[in-house]
Amino acid sequence: MHVTLEHAEKAIAAARKKALELNTQMCIAVVDSGANLKAFIRMDDAWVGSIDIAIKKATTSCFFGMATGQLGQLSQPGKPLYGIEHSNDGLITFPGGVPIVDEDGVLVGAIGVSGSVVENDHAVAEAGVKVLGVTELPEHPWRT
Amino acid sequence: MHVTLEHAEKAIAAARKKALELNTQMCIAVVDSGANLKAFIRMDDAWVGSIDIAIKKATTSCFFGMATGQLGQLSQPGKPLYGIEHSNDGLITFPGGVPIVDEDGVLVGAIGVSGSVVENDHAVAEAGVKVLGVTELPEHPWRT
Amino acid sequence: MHVTLEHAEKAIAAARKKALELNTQMCIAVVDSGANLKAFIRMDDAWVGSIDIAIKKATTSCFFGMATGQLGQLSQPGKPLYGIEHSNDGLITFPGGVPIVDEDGVLVGAIGVSGSVVENDHAVAEAGVKVLGVTELPEHPWRT
Amino acid sequence: MHVTLEHAEKAIAAARKKALELNTQMCIAVVDSGANLKAFIRMDDAWVGSIDIAIKKATTSCFFGMATGQLGQLSQPGKPLYGIEHSNDGLITFPGGVPIVDEDGVLVGAIGVSGSVVENDHAVAEAGVKVLGVTELPEHPWRT
Repeated sequence: MHVTLEHAEKAIAAARKKALELNTQMCIAVVDSGANLKAFIRMDDAWVGSIDIAIKKATTSCFFGMATGQLGQLSQPGKPLYGIEHSNDGLITFPGGVPIVDEDGVLVGAIGVSGSVVENDHAVAEAGVKVLGVTELPEHPWRT
Repeated sequence: MHVTLEHAEKAIAAARKKALELNTQMCIAVVDSGANLKAFIRMDDAWVGSIDIAIKKATTSCFFGMATGQLGQLSQPGKPLYGIEHSNDGLITFPGGVPIVDEDGVLVGAIGVSGSVVENDHAVAEAGVKVLGVTELPEHPWRT
Repeated sequence: MHVTLEHAEKAIAAARKKALELNTQMCIAVVDSGANLKAFIRMDDAWVGSIDIAIKKATTSCFFGMATGQLGQLSQPGKPLYGIEHSNDGLITFPGGVPIVDEDGVLVGAIGVSGSVVENDHAVAEAGVKVLGVTELPEHPWRT
Repeated sequence: MHVTLEHAEKAIAAARKKALELNTQMCIAVVDSGANLKAFIRMDDAWVGSIDIAIKKATTSCFFGMATGQLGQLSQPGKPLYGIEHSNDGLITFPGGVPIVDEDGVLVGAIGVSGSVVENDHAVAEAGVKVLGVTELPEHPWRT
C-alpha cells in the first residue's frame, strides 16, 4: 500500500501550516512505501540545500521504518551502524524524517522536512503525519 | 528571479487538471531558474520511472531556456548536439519540458511532465505554463 | 539575483592577491545563487584535489547561506547535523566557503577556497567577498 | 607539462573576445593535461546547462588528444566508437573542445566552449588555443 496523492497533499498542507506557525521556511517531501517521491514543496526563501536533505530524510525514514533521528543515534562513531549514511546513495540520519503508517500498522510512506533547526524539522514532519491519523509506530512496520 | 511557490502550485494545479481531462496519470515537476526543485506531484498510478524523467525534463528545459522537444531535434544521430544527454547528470530531450518565462521575458523556472505519450506530456506542461501568463519564448530568455 | 561575471572576477582577483600574500597556492571558485559555477581558477602548483573541494565549499555555502565552517560546527559527531555532508552530492563543511550577499542583504552567490590550512582558506575567501562590499551576513540571507 | 594559469587566462581572454564578436554568451573551460580544471568563466546570460558541457568538452578533448568534433564522427550509430560517451563519467563529442599543444607537440591541456551553435563554440575554442601559438596537432600528442 502506498500513500495516495490526496493524503500526501494533506500531510504537506498540515506540515506547511506548522512551518508557518514556527516562522520557518521548509522543504517538505513525501515518499511512498517504495521510497519514491510522491509530492514535494519548497517554501519561498527555504535553503536550496534543504531540497535534497528533505527528500533523503523521507527516503531514509521509509527505508528503515523509523524516524531519522532514531537511526542517527545508532550511526554515531562507536555505535553499531556507524557510517550507514554511505549506503543507498546517501542517507540523512538526523531528525526531520518520520514514517507514515496507516491505521492497520502498515508503512505507506514517509515525510521528510528540512530548513530549520532539527527540532523544528521534526515538529513539522510530525504535524504532517498526525493529520493522517497515526504517529505511534509498531515495532517493525512494513508495507504489503 | 525565481518562480514563487504560489506560482509553482498554480502551474501544477492547471497541469493536473489537463492531465485529468486527458485521462492520464502524470508526474509534474517545477524547478526555479537555478534548476532547483520547487514543487512536485506524482498522481496516483503514475509510473515510478516518470519521477526522474519529469524532474529531468524541467531541469533540461531550464538549463537551455527552451522546450525539451526542441533540444531533442538537435540531439539525434548525425545532428549537431548528438549525445548532449550525457551532460548535467543526464538530460531528457523529448517533449514534456517547457520554460517558465515572466512578462518581462525573464526565465524564472521550468515545468516538466512525464507519464503518457510525449504529445500529452507536452500538452500538460503547456497547460501549466499558460496559467502563469506567458507561453511565447523570447529568443534567449534568461534570468536576472 | 546572481553575481555577475565582473563581480566574480573581482572577487577572485582579490582572493588571489591574498593567497599570494600568504604564500599559498589556492583553488578559488565562485558560484551564483543557484549554486551553479560562475568562475574558477587553480593557481599553479595548487593541489588537484582542491578543485572539487573549492567548488563544494562554494556550493555548500550557497546552499545554506552561511560560512562552511559554521555548518561544520553543527555536523560533528553528536551534534544536530551529523552526517549532513552526505547530502547534495557531497558537502564540505570545514572553513573556506563564504556567501556573497549584496547591499540589500540578498544572497547572490558564494566563494569557495581550498589549498592551504583552513584558516588561510577562509581568509582568502573573506578577502574575495570583502571587495564586493558586504561581509556581515543577515540572519537568513536569501535570493529573490 | 601542464598549461599554466597565465596561459589558461590568456586563452580564456582570447576566447571571450571572440565570443563577444560573435554576439554569444559562452561558458569557457580550460583543463590541464591531467584533464583537471584549471580555469573557467561563465559569461552573463550564458546557459546554466553549458557549464557542464564546456567542462566535459575540455576533458573529452584532453582525454583523447583530439577535437571533440573528430571523436563525434566516430561515435555515431554504426561507427567504431558508438556509445563512447558513456565512459569517463560522460563525454561530450560534438564540436567545441580543442586540445592545447605546446611548440614541442606536447599536449598541455584543452579548452572547451559551450553556449551557442557548435560552429561558434568551436570557433571560440580555436580562438582561445590560437593565442597560445599552436593549432596544428601532431598525430598522437601527449603529455610528458
